[in-house]
Amino acid sequence: MGMDLSSFEAVPFVNRRARLSQALGAKPALVAAGLPLPRNYLANTYSYRAGSHFLYLFGLPLRGAFGFFDGQTWHVFAPNPDPASALWHGPEPTLQELSAALLCPVHALEDLETEVANRGAMTLPSSDARTCLNQSKLLGRALQTGEIAPHDHPLADAMVSLRLFHDAAALAEMRVAVEATTAAHLAGMQATRPGLKESHVRAAMEAQIIARNMTTAYGSIVTVHGEVLHNELHGGDIGINDLLLADVGAESPGGFASDVTRTWPAQGTYSSTQAEVYEVVLKTQKDVIAAVKPGARYRDLHMLALTRMGQGLIDLGILRGGVDELVEAGAVSLFFPHGTGHLLGLDVHDMEDLGDRAGYAPGRQRTKNFKLRTLRLDRDLLPRMAVTIEPGFYQVPAILQHPEMGQDPKLHSLVDWAVLERFSDVRGIRIEDDVFVTEEGHEVLTAAIPKERADVQATMHA
Amino acid sequence: MGMDLSSFEAVPFVNRRARLSQALGAKPALVAAGLPLPRNYLANTYSYRAGSHFLYLFGLPLRGAFGFFDGQTWHVFAPNPDPASALWHGPEPTLQELSAALLCPVHALEDLETEVANRGAMTLPSSDARTCLNQSKLLGRALQTGEIAPHDHPLADAMVSLRLFHDAAALAEMRVAVEATTAAHLAGMQATRPGLKESHVRAAMEAQIIARNMTTAYGSIVTVHGEVLHNELHGGDIGINDLLLADVGAESPGGFASDVTRTWPAQGTYSSTQAEVYEVVLKTQKDVIAAVKPGARYRDLHMLALTRMGQGLIDLGILRGGVDELVEAGAVSLFFPHGTGHLLGLDVHDMEDLGDRAGYAPGRQRTKNFKLRTLRLDRDLLPRMAVTIEPGFYQVPAILQHPEMGQDPKLHSLVDWAVLERFSDVRGIRIEDDVFVTEEGHEVLTAAIPKERADVQATMHA
Repeated sequence: MGMDLSSFEAVPFVNRRARLSQALGAKPALVAAGLPLPRNYLANTYSYRAGSHFLYLFGLPLRGAFGFFDGQTWHVFAPNPDPASALWHGPEPTLQELSAALLCPVHALEDLETEVANRGAMTLPSSDARTCLNQSKLLGRALQTGEIAPHDHPLADAMVSLRLFHDAAALAEMRVAVEATTAAHLAGMQATRPGLKESHVRAAMEAQIIARNMTTAYGSIVTVHGEVLHNELHGGDIGINDLLLADVGAESPGGFASDVTRTWPAQGTYSSTQAEVYEVVLKTQKDVIAAVKPGARYRDLHMLALTRMGQGLIDLGILRGGVDELVEAGAVSLFFPHGTGHLLGLDVHDMEDLGDRAGYAPGRQRTKNFKLRTLRLDRDLLPRMAVTIEPGFYQVPAILQHPEMGQDPKLHSLVDWAVLERFSDVRGIRIEDDVFVTEEGHEVLTAAIPKERADVQATMHA
Repeated sequence: MGMDLSSFEAVPFVNRRARLSQALGAKPALVAAGLPLPRNYLANTYSYRAGSHFLYLFGLPLRGAFGFFDGQTWHVFAPNPDPASALWHGPEPTLQELSAALLCPVHALEDLETEVANRGAMTLPSSDARTCLNQSKLLGRALQTGEIAPHDHPLADAMVSLRLFHDAAALAEMRVAVEATTAAHLAGMQATRPGLKESHVRAAMEAQIIARNMTTAYGSIVTVHGEVLHNELHGGDIGINDLLLADVGAESPGGFASDVTRTWPAQGTYSSTQAEVYEVVLKTQKDVIAAVKPGARYRDLHMLALTRMGQGLIDLGILRGGVDELVEAGAVSLFFPHGTGHLLGLDVHDMEDLGDRAGYAPGRQRTKNFKLRTLRLDRDLLPRMAVTIEPGFYQVPAILQHPEMGQDPKLHSLVDWAVLERFSDVRGIRIEDDVFVTEEGHEVLTAAIPKERADVQATMHA
């Protein structure tokens, strides 16, 4: 009952481990699955999510386990099933059964310490603080979640070199996540009515994901205040003239994320002002997606997004001046303050635990510039990468009223505030798809989720 | 956006803090809210749940905050809102606004260290490992989640003395949780059809909770394998002859839990064997609930449950012998191996972080006896306590086939295995309600959730 191994396919993971071994040479490495996290007391835990590096290499959410590369072979060290716990949790696979399923030797966790001692193994700190402390003890050096020590850079870089490029098994998982995400967005559109709470729509969306025995890949954003970019509240009323922004994505059983945003009108029809801005965002998004292909530099895609968005806002009369100057001055970023997208994979911001080593190609760094500092990705795209493309338009009071942003005299004069006033019913619009880079160009994995206004409205009225 | 203080009522929390101050005398105490927990990387967190002791005293989920009693006055130390984060998360309340809402001085978190230093404050270890480490550093002594040091016993006991008895605000929160839980169970019954997955029913149930902008109080159990007591899987098919056991409870916005189990037949009608055992469990549960009143000792309620269950199993022919002997020998516990219930409050097993200090009255301890060792509660009930009453019948292979349990020669002869065979379509039945002890006796908080067979069937066919 504890874990169903009958349908587990080990071969993709054997291949990944082999490729990582090759990249590591003979250097030992330790990869942690992590422990379940307590919600309020130790026995009441959040739904377990194994660490992404561990899932990438082994595919099974083995609580408290470690993968260990001894310089030649990969091993798993896992807690022996507790016979007493079988009474409560049902039978757990034995270490022998795990070994047969994983095609990898599996040892008792208590044997890890002597195996690892004095090997100078590289590791990546678990996001689980207890496990990170265990890693520190095992390796005899202080580790900190989110900080990759120089000693561990070769392991981090090797993981990046693998995980950047999605193999067939990874792509299949992403498609499973996308199917659930598609159902969620369709259900959300259909459940929306003025007068309901945001949480009602969230429930309709997440029910589609839960029904498929999956979880969300990140905290859902379902809000009429799309201008609060990371809005975690869902208690607001849906007003008749509101736009509802829904950023909701499922995680596949193997741990792969999807990440999709749609923005639809509460009453099923966009107002004329909402429609005008929506079309600017949509055209921007489509133009950027069209440019996704091997060799395209992601920062250039972001600049293209800013340019298209800027031209749209000029056409609407919200911005004044030449588009290049407006982009350069940061005037477009007042309304589109985040990056155009990010890597997607086992993490919704894939490998964000490794900092910018994943998102930024070697030799490239984030700039402090307002229009680029929030860009999580600057690589030349290559086949089998997956990215999001998610431009947006927002009226963020804290930005527009900020003395160094919207109220900076130079920027202030580039906005026609009287025209902007007309668009007060457009607080936040984002349109986000998951895009897989192919040899020929790209495939929009989330293409089945309506985004043309007519399609959204038809879905809502169905 | 970050937190809506407008509807926050501080008075119940002021009163709780005053009562705790009184219980503590002049001894300083530190109570942690805890940090959000990362799901796969630091910025991708589970939905935040503040620690129960902190919620009990302050009522607001203040991430990373501490409550500190300096021997005279309660203070809060909270992170100053980050101006940059306002761009992304919306405006956060200032410390001044928090102070006005809480009716309590609120200081910047960085001032806590000097305030606490060398005061010998008592504390209760956070379940969040990072916070527990911070507490250790602040207090200059090693703390371990789930272990209460002798120095901290007076604080633990004072919290128990308060939290055992639910004030009007707590009871109101529990009623909110119960309302959502009721809707969830009704929806679950109505969504059940043979051929669906367990996860489909779970989705229907949890959607009711999410729609009310709440969360589940614990990991939902929705399974046709009710005999796996802590079943966390939801991927199974619902067969036409299966019983579905659903143990699902909502948590109110203020953090209070409900905890309810119902067991219903996949096709909407209990088979004759399912009905026979169901009636034994239901009669047992009703008899035990009828005995809930001030002065009743919870262990006696458990013994009553074992006795009623035993008599029912004798009447069905599953057990052979006199009921008292069967209970004493542990034969009833073969089929009902868990305790009859537990405390309920801000935690679903209330104050389980304090070990048995909460569940067991001073001077009482768990026995190692099979029929009592899993009992989480042995107190004399008093008005304003809340408990669950949740007897069950299970055929757990690991128990029935265990050489020291079902296969122990003495126990083995007390079971009529041929008769038991007839009940093979009854793998697990549990019926669980939340019961509030009143001056006169009790109130079943969850009485609106159908449990009579006719009512369950009518709900399913509605």
